[in-house]
Amino acid sequence: MSELPREFAIIARHFRPLAGQGALGLGDDAAVLSPPPGRDLVVAADAMVAGVHFLPDDPPDLVARKLLRTNLSDLAAMGAMPLGYLLTVSVPRSTDEAWFAGFAAGLARDQQEFGVSLLGGDTTSTTGPIGLSLTIVGTVLPGQVLRRDGAQAGDRIWVTGTIGDGALGLLAARGEIADPDGFLVDRYRVPQPRLALGLRLHGIAHAAMDVSDGLVQDLGHLCRAAGLAATIEAAAVPLSAAARAAGRLNLCLGGGDDYELLLAVPDQAERALAVAARESGTQVTRIGRFAAGSPCVSVIGPDGPMRLGRSGWDHLG
Amino acid sequence: MSELPREFAIIARHFRPLAGQGALGLGDDAAVLSPPPGRDLVVAADAMVAGVHFLPDDPPDLVARKLLRTNLSDLAAMGAMPLGYLLTVSVPRSTDEAWFAGFAAGLARDQQEFGVSLLGGDTTSTTGPIGLSLTIVGTVLPGQVLRRDGAQAGDRIWVTGTIGDGALGLLAARGEIADPDGFLVDRYRVPQPRLALGLRLHGIAHAAMDVSDGLVQDLGHLCRAAGLAATIEAAAVPLSAAARAAGRLNLCLGGGDDYELLLAVPDQAERALAVAARESGTQVTRIGRFAAGSPCVSVIGPDGPMRLGRSGWDHLG
Repeated sequence: MSELPREFAIIARHFRPLAGQGALGLGDDAAVLSPPPGRDLVVAADAMVAGVHFLPDDPPDLVARKLLRTNLSDLAAMGAMPLGYLLTVSVPRSTDEAWFAGFAAGLARDQQEFGVSLLGGDTTSTTGPIGLSLTIVGTVLPGQVLRRDGAQAGDRIWVTGTIGDGALGLLAARGEIADPDGFLVDRYRVPQPRLALGLRLHGIAHAAMDVSDGLVQDLGHLCRAAGLAATIEAAAVPLSAAARAAGRLNLCLGGGDDYELLLAVPDQAERALAVAARESGTQVTRIGRFAAGSPCVSVIGPDGPMRLGRSGWDHLG
Repeated sequence: MSELPREFAIIARHFRPLAGQGALGLGDDAAVLSPPPGRDLVVAADAMVAGVHFLPDDPPDLVARKLLRTNLSDLAAMGAMPLGYLLTVSVPRSTDEAWFAGFAAGLARDQQEFGVSLLGGDTTSTTGPIGLSLTIVGTVLPGQVLRRDGAQAGDRIWVTGTIGDGALGLLAARGEIADPDGFLVDRYRVPQPRLALGLRLHGIAHAAMDVSDGLVQDLGHLCRAAGLAATIEAAAVPLSAAARAAGRLNLCLGGGDDYELLLAVPDQAERALAVAARESGTQVTRIGRFAAGSPCVSVIGPDGPMRLGRSGWDHLG
């Protein structure tokens, strides 16, 4: 039988080893899954394009891990447990085997860390930059999903981890700011999905989402979903030592790529939140509160209300 | 509150009306589905890139329908019933609103025809050609899924519909061959997923797949999966009147984009296949048989065995 086209060799060599139960060795038209009985499914999809969401010369293993992790972050924000994923990869014909090997190695590493496997997908060529799309599949107990629209007046606003490292890391990766120990670039390239905390937030958080387009813009989504105003204190927003050293507060508040969780938590659940944070090894910080009012985010700085200008990351505008 | 970026306006105006149950109005981090009790899930993903899988000036509604239909064809090949889909769209910044309106109109039309709805996705920019990725979600009764690897020696080879129209339609769309009534271009742009037949094939077909990369190449996949040889008679391969008029038999046998089903059916199931075909309004044609032997596809033409040369569509090579 004549030699198989390169597409099939790439799939067999690099992607088949990532295939999990139900994927039928990636050799069929689709994967077959028996959903865990008594659980709902949670599904989300995100695309990443070279030059838009990552730098064309970013190491392929880190690109793969960012793609998987940004999708896992969506599951974390829903309080869901990951199960598997589908992946489509569109690459220039000149893409060499080493790129696929590196990309698959990154996926293999994070598959192990997060307990997921590849269910299916497609590999194709493009005349443009590398284009990636990943659909994540997870599960949640019925009624336990975290939503964006549940914030109530008086709820405190909490965030996980530190804010702004992703946006600063992009500048550092471009050589525009210093990053002596590579901390910021690492935070930009390999976000940390807060799955362990997300799984513990049912009954604690009234609303949750992940911060991907910038803290202020994403908080605006929670405000609109609930019909509430929000105020955050700039001094309370948790910054890493590297971000404090960079001294670009506006960028930290408005930039994207944090992949931290943003939560609305009533006062009476703060003790439970502290327990969940400790059990999951996640830092959480209170940065403000929701109040009755038309949807609006106010940021209070050292000298009173701050003007942030246009903030947030728009993938089309 | 400051104006929302364009990405959100596009989603609200064009994609939110397509959102179905569980999609949470596309306003959350993910969709939540209660899988139909007692059924397995079937998931597949396919990417399409302008200039590779469709022509850059193809009407956007037809591009959308082809994207959805090629994925539905994967479900048909598994004997699965469609439920919903996730979609990522990467477009040049210059893409105008009319493109999104047309694209969404195509999806709306086929959502109604096939009983599916949009569950989630992502819209982003690219510096390259339009890149699309769709993940389809369907269901099947446990144990009733159709697989590629079940063909047995002696099984007859059947195909649905007519073969070669897609490959000829691409030539016609490029103006390279005549297509007086537009039949071939239409077959290239709007494939017909054989869902109604696929749902009736459990207990009839030993193996099934959809023909997307060319009849001979895809039949080779069934051969390798089962460890069998296959022989087809060129004269038996069903051609449309337009394809017969074009007189490009090799292209019909080797070209891609058919999205017809290719089946392995034992003699004793032929009567049941005829009933399933009639009930689903699908034409089926017997074109050859599987036999013991090393994996190999032979095509018998009017003058004996045909040499087809390199055939099949490789998306990377």
